[in-house]
Amino acid sequence: MNLLSRIFQYELPTQIVFGVNAIQELPQKVRKLAGSRVFVVSDPGVEQAGILKKVTDLLAESHITFETFTEVDREPDVKTIGIATGKAKEFAADLVIGVGGGSAQDAAKAVAVMINNEGKITQYAGLDKLPNPGVPIICIPTTAGTGSEVTIWTVISEKENNMKFGIGGKYLAPTLALCDPALTLSLPGPMTAATGIDALTHALESFVNKATQPVSEALSRESMRLIAKSLRKAVAQGDKLEARYDMLLASTIAAMAFNPTRLGLAHALCMPLGGKFKVPHGVANAILLPQVMEFNLVGNLEKFKEIAEIFGENTEGLPLRDAAELSVKAIRQLNRDIGIPAGLREYGVTEENLDYIAREGMTSGNVLVNPRKPTLEDLKEIVRRSI
Amino acid sequence: MNLLSRIFQYELPTQIVFGVNAIQELPQKVRKLAGSRVFVVSDPGVEQAGILKKVTDLLAESHITFETFTEVDREPDVKTIGIATGKAKEFAADLVIGVGGGSAQDAAKAVAVMINNEGKITQYAGLDKLPNPGVPIICIPTTAGTGSEVTIWTVISEKENNMKFGIGGKYLAPTLALCDPALTLSLPGPMTAATGIDALTHALESFVNKATQPVSEALSRESMRLIAKSLRKAVAQGDKLEARYDMLLASTIAAMAFNPTRLGLAHALCMPLGGKFKVPHGVANAILLPQVMEFNLVGNLEKFKEIAEIFGENTEGLPLRDAAELSVKAIRQLNRDIGIPAGLREYGVTEENLDYIAREGMTSGNVLVNPRKPTLEDLKEIVRRSI
Repeated sequence: MNLLSRIFQYELPTQIVFGVNAIQELPQKVRKLAGSRVFVVSDPGVEQAGILKKVTDLLAESHITFETFTEVDREPDVKTIGIATGKAKEFAADLVIGVGGGSAQDAAKAVAVMINNEGKITQYAGLDKLPNPGVPIICIPTTAGTGSEVTIWTVISEKENNMKFGIGGKYLAPTLALCDPALTLSLPGPMTAATGIDALTHALESFVNKATQPVSEALSRESMRLIAKSLRKAVAQGDKLEARYDMLLASTIAAMAFNPTRLGLAHALCMPLGGKFKVPHGVANAILLPQVMEFNLVGNLEKFKEIAEIFGENTEGLPLRDAAELSVKAIRQLNRDIGIPAGLREYGVTEENLDYIAREGMTSGNVLVNPRKPTLEDLKEIVRRSI
Repeated sequence: MNLLSRIFQYELPTQIVFGVNAIQELPQKVRKLAGSRVFVVSDPGVEQAGILKKVTDLLAESHITFETFTEVDREPDVKTIGIATGKAKEFAADLVIGVGGGSAQDAAKAVAVMINNEGKITQYAGLDKLPNPGVPIICIPTTAGTGSEVTIWTVISEKENNMKFGIGGKYLAPTLALCDPALTLSLPGPMTAATGIDALTHALESFVNKATQPVSEALSRESMRLIAKSLRKAVAQGDKLEARYDMLLASTIAAMAFNPTRLGLAHALCMPLGGKFKVPHGVANAILLPQVMEFNLVGNLEKFKEIAEIFGENTEGLPLRDAAELSVKAIRQLNRDIGIPAGLREYGVTEENLDYIAREGMTSGNVLVNPRKPTLEDLKEIVRRSI
């Protein structure tokens, strides 16, 4: 038993408050965190959907002083973080709220720490490089996928040189994740699909990777069960609150699972695909995942068999290898059912880019924990099959 | 869906470090918590087993100043806490380590908070009644059952009037749980059995109760799976490290599950059985659990069916009610296999005591979350069948 020979850690720096109308608890939570000047970070989409107003109305009704910054770009750029941090400091913010998907939440987390740290956040790429803690952070997710509301990571781009960076550590963990499934009801189908597969990729890559441990495994299983049950319905019938509930829960729980374990090859390859080719994070994961699973299978047949079963495949009487293979079939079918684009060609990725993508992917920390050690050629082949 | 109508919270104030030889990390963890004068709380059994020495040797080798208090009694008395707190204050302790089973860990947690609070700890019975935080706490479990290393509760007796009290709140959460399965290898079979069923009761009562939620459910399932797999072996072959690993993990994970949910009738009735009749906590739970399950079944048939399946019962083709009932059969068999005493009569409990036990049990907060609302008569009947 591999586990007997290593020591694992588990901790959860974020308090989670979860439920329909949980958003109503915002004013009392702000007060509990002694927030008196609140800087709200969001993006134009969230503002147009009317979700931001729900948040700021609650603050206004409770006479909490706040300022909003709604210019977060997708895969937020380091310059955006610099501008937002400048405004937050000018405003003398003592608490930051992020309202949105991964981009808005990651930006909020970045701003909260950069209030108390010098320079550009990308110079702190890696784990625990920030010298000073930031101000308290409340994250309010409006998509079900990123899990940023409970992770110790923020992903920031440097668009002028097509790079994306992960900055991680306990200072980047939100103080509070305020998760209200009702806020995700208006998310369009394609976004629901892409973010939902992002959550699945978190749960699945953590579940099979070398750094997982029993606490994360239990959470990954629960997350995958919820996704198997409710992702199709959340995409097909977006107004079904129960499906939205399950998906937001699956997303948050998946992040609780992968926080201490990191992920795998899909997430490693997502970085250059997002950075250079602007493939949305969830779409990149969705397209890559079946090929990554096919490659990883042999590293952990039992786990892939279990994934097949969670997604409803009948493995009875099958040899282990065949049972494990069914997990790939199940995810391919799920991708088709929810309308994931067939391949990366739609984003301009061609054979000529394989080397660049594979080389960039290979630099990710996620490669180290992947259940099968890849060569550069392996990564190229995974991307080739994903075109 | 009941969950849609309520907001749940999940948080984990304790950092968990888990693994064979995890104990070796103690000195660096003490330093990280800025502990310079460490007060070690333990009991005579742990000292005689040579486990305490392993801990103090590590402190001594690292030149960390410490003092030990080894006079913790079983189900620790408020007077013991008073004496230990006096010594800790005299020593100017800035960190408390608890080494042992539930009693030693609960005593350590009590001492850590009472260093900074006035009076007797039992006057703070209930949730969040302590006005001041204590000093940091490191818990090192030597049994697999209590889960005290991650709970926000400590249970303290007032033996002169046969009472037991639960004192809870975030100040009572250990800062660090240092869980080393190797420390449980020497635990005798009967103690392994009783404490193991205590862990099971935590996982199971949380799983079926009215306050549970998906994070706790996922953890309860994992805990029960580990217990189903490894409790019999841990009792029968105590030197099997893998079985000990599973059981300590099951115990810690069960506590992560029940921390925010509380428990049920078995734990409600344990209090008077421990207080007045000195039935060891785990034994009381083990004897009561099948009768409590039988009573609770109708409150959540699906969950009891799942428990039956986790414990290896074949529910295929059975009506739901019959499948659920198999969970009781499975736990009765488990109790017999690991040598749990047949009934409470061994501890002097008779028909005449039913009214007292039921009335005391009824005052527990655990009654409120139980999946079936009991009358006083119901509680008496559960205890009657457990005699």
